[in-house]
Amino acid sequence: MDKILLGHGSGGKLMHRLIAETIAPAFGISELGDSAVLDGAELAGGRIAFTTDSYVVSPIFFPGGDIGDLAVNGTVNDLSMVGGIPLWLTAGLIVEEGFPAESLARVLASMKAAAQKAGVRIVAGDTKVVDRGKGDGIFINTAGVGVIPQEILLGARQVRAGDRILISGQIGNHGVAVMAERNGLTFEPPLMSDCAPLNGIVAELLAAVPGSVRIMRDPTRGGLATTLKEIALETGFCFSLAEDSIPVPDAVRGACDLLGLDPLYVANEGIFIALIAEAAAEQALGVLRGHPLGRHAAIIGEVKAPDERSRGMVLLRTVIGGTRIVDMLAGEQLPRIC
Amino acid sequence: MDKILLGHGSGGKLMHRLIAETIAPAFGISELGDSAVLDGAELAGGRIAFTTDSYVVSPIFFPGGDIGDLAVNGTVNDLSMVGGIPLWLTAGLIVEEGFPAESLARVLASMKAAAQKAGVRIVAGDTKVVDRGKGDGIFINTAGVGVIPQEILLGARQVRAGDRILISGQIGNHGVAVMAERNGLTFEPPLMSDCAPLNGIVAELLAAVPGSVRIMRDPTRGGLATTLKEIALETGFCFSLAEDSIPVPDAVRGACDLLGLDPLYVANEGIFIALIAEAAAEQALGVLRGHPLGRHAAIIGEVKAPDERSRGMVLLRTVIGGTRIVDMLAGEQLPRIC
Repeated sequence: MDKILLGHGSGGKLMHRLIAETIAPAFGISELGDSAVLDGAELAGGRIAFTTDSYVVSPIFFPGGDIGDLAVNGTVNDLSMVGGIPLWLTAGLIVEEGFPAESLARVLASMKAAAQKAGVRIVAGDTKVVDRGKGDGIFINTAGVGVIPQEILLGARQVRAGDRILISGQIGNHGVAVMAERNGLTFEPPLMSDCAPLNGIVAELLAAVPGSVRIMRDPTRGGLATTLKEIALETGFCFSLAEDSIPVPDAVRGACDLLGLDPLYVANEGIFIALIAEAAAEQALGVLRGHPLGRHAAIIGEVKAPDERSRGMVLLRTVIGGTRIVDMLAGEQLPRIC
Repeated sequence: MDKILLGHGSGGKLMHRLIAETIAPAFGISELGDSAVLDGAELAGGRIAFTTDSYVVSPIFFPGGDIGDLAVNGTVNDLSMVGGIPLWLTAGLIVEEGFPAESLARVLASMKAAAQKAGVRIVAGDTKVVDRGKGDGIFINTAGVGVIPQEILLGARQVRAGDRILISGQIGNHGVAVMAERNGLTFEPPLMSDCAPLNGIVAELLAAVPGSVRIMRDPTRGGLATTLKEIALETGFCFSLAEDSIPVPDAVRGACDLLGLDPLYVANEGIFIALIAEAAAEQALGVLRGHPLGRHAAIIGEVKAPDERSRGMVLLRTVIGGTRIVDMLAGEQLPRIC
């Protein structure tokens, strides 16, 4: 097999061989069947986190990652953001007829490695094939289940005036790396996606400042600006940010100038925003900075009690001393970034 | 909005409006967020069933269903086949730029109605948009979680020589309905997909003959023949079928002749195969026939102790008295049937 054929999706021999020889070994799934059957004891005593995301990133290979580890890390991170310990993932592949078998193998290997790194199991999968010209190489859906320990209480209702807004790392790397690859641009040193599993750093944070983490969110599509605006709207508070505290790598800033992008709206895949009680913010910052994924963590702003006009607003004090109202991304800045 | 734009997938305002006004109300999801947070108590005391499937059926609307209820029922059924009581579903949409908003609304309404009928909740969703020509209208992934009661013990290892092979209804309806629609054929009376949720009829069966159901499987892609061959290979037994006992509607038989298809390999979306202990088979048949989805249920064969040569074989005694070896579908009989 050097290319995927329509028959690989038809349920018959070709599909069985593809699953038995290529997909099941990659995921370490031994038994065929309609559903994975899992031990409920792993979920005992907690609430359940359940999420899904489809990945349609173009191109599928980019500096620092590919659609495979992106799909695994993205769902691991969505579970982590609600305080869930990620346990199990499913993987649904939609492959275009003619997709190179070698690329499929590479993507599957990348999913397997990402799952191992994050400590999650891919427990069930599905493969569909669409005719040439009706897809784009490969799309991947992952769904994930995690368990949220009883003592974890996160959400918009936990947010208080005075809370500090932390970011775990530099912004813009993923989106710029994908756009550069798409446009055939290279940078020296190369811009790399930040694609990474956040469950480890999140677990350390939650353990270090118990009860002080209010809400977490990973600023993927729409970037830091859109994600903060979402949280502001959900909580009804006003968020005040200091532009000079937001960690933007020089290379991202340069590439954004070149590509006509605003780093605040560029997608990230390996950082998260955490709102932390004021008293614990410095300690939390130290914990983040002590983790390999959090070396560039920063306190970028704080939660303000809003007045009539500023409810749900995100205000950015700019480097030159002005105040900019930060809104959601309007329309499309970066299509198919994840 | 009358068409989906690329910007509807970019994470910004357009996407938020689409989710807030169209998708969240359809699924009854009120809160945005990275993951659904669910009450683990619903899973207490059982094993967990977890599954995924992507749906790429073409055309997306067909007699008897559409890609929306297909995506919900398909995952409900995969959970049911392992004895799981389906609880929660996620929905991942991959929409092609230019897809009519009206079609999206119709598909979402169909998903909502199917979820209500099956008694499951769609708890999380995701929407991606791909550029025109890089998708095909809409693809839908669903993942599902269910709980398997402690007393349910199903699987290839439960199968015994002498077990009877039951089918819950007529074969071929779904595949033929989709192929007819794709080819612009109409039949009088119209051929309808059998797309339906099987959790109700399965629950009745499991309750009526406790301990006697060995394994269940729904014969979707690849049809009855491929699915039986899968089970035969997993169990190592030989399955003996009587062709004249397999319920094939006249309309399906006629359409298959016309389209050059073999009904044994045509996909189904509302029936299942159950291997039942010999002593309980007649009672099980009665239970199935008493359910609206099981009126045409039949005992179609039995499990034989194999010799050297017949391990994992499926043998069909034909109407004219011969014996046909039934194998898996080779290559593609029906691409994009689900």
